[in-house]
Amino acid sequence: MADCLFCKIINGEVPSTKVFENELVYAFRDIEPQAPEHIVIVPKKHIASTNDITAENSGYVAAIFEAAAQIAKQLGIDGDGYRIVNNCGKLGGQTVGHLHFHLMGGRSFGWPAG
Amino acid sequence: MADCLFCKIINGEVPSTKVFENELVYAFRDIEPQAPEHIVIVPKKHIASTNDITAENSGYVAAIFEAAAQIAKQLGIDGDGYRIVNNCGKLGGQTVGHLHFHLMGGRSFGWPAG
Repeated sequence: MADCLFCKIINGEVPSTKVFENELVYAFRDIEPQAPEHIVIVPKKHIASTNDITAENSGYVAAIFEAAAQIAKQLGIDGDGYRIVNNCGKLGGQTVGHLHFHLMGGRSFGWPAG
Repeated sequence: MADCLFCKIINGEVPSTKVFENELVYAFRDIEPQAPEHIVIVPKKHIASTNDITAENSGYVAAIFEAAAQIAKQLGIDGDGYRIVNNCGKLGGQTVGHLHFHLMGGRSFGWPAG
């Protein structure tokens, strides 16, 4: 998508601090971190939001959570724990129209989650 | 798992208010809702936490997010939006040792997410 910030990050048009990449997934540090470790994980395919997840593209979500487990180990936060958040739409707080997951660790997270 | 609360909910040993079920996924209303709509979505297979997601079992996560999109439509919260949260380990706030995702909607969610 020509006007999508995360598509531009994936293709290198916009710089990012990459922490993980494979054929399906790209992960980078959030530029406004809300925790000592705050990683944004996105599918390399443009999927607008959670509402658009179907049997045809859900393999990207599987790959994202495989990557999340690996990134947590890579960052050394797997033992203490972390939170993964997906925001969909206006009430959810989604600010970029490309499906993404916030992996946050390095501190304790309260409940409810926002 | 004999002592797992969510395994007992899946097999009907512990009652729950079911909102969705298929071959891989079970979803029910949280008994301590943090939003007007608060659904817990779990894989029918016992997976302890996000740390244990691998290529062998990530199909359950794909199925969970396909289900989430369908449940959001079913509840009529897909248009306004919602938040999905996965807590892993102590710092993340995980209270049941069976992988699960909180789908919450019907109100606005702040940032950061806890």
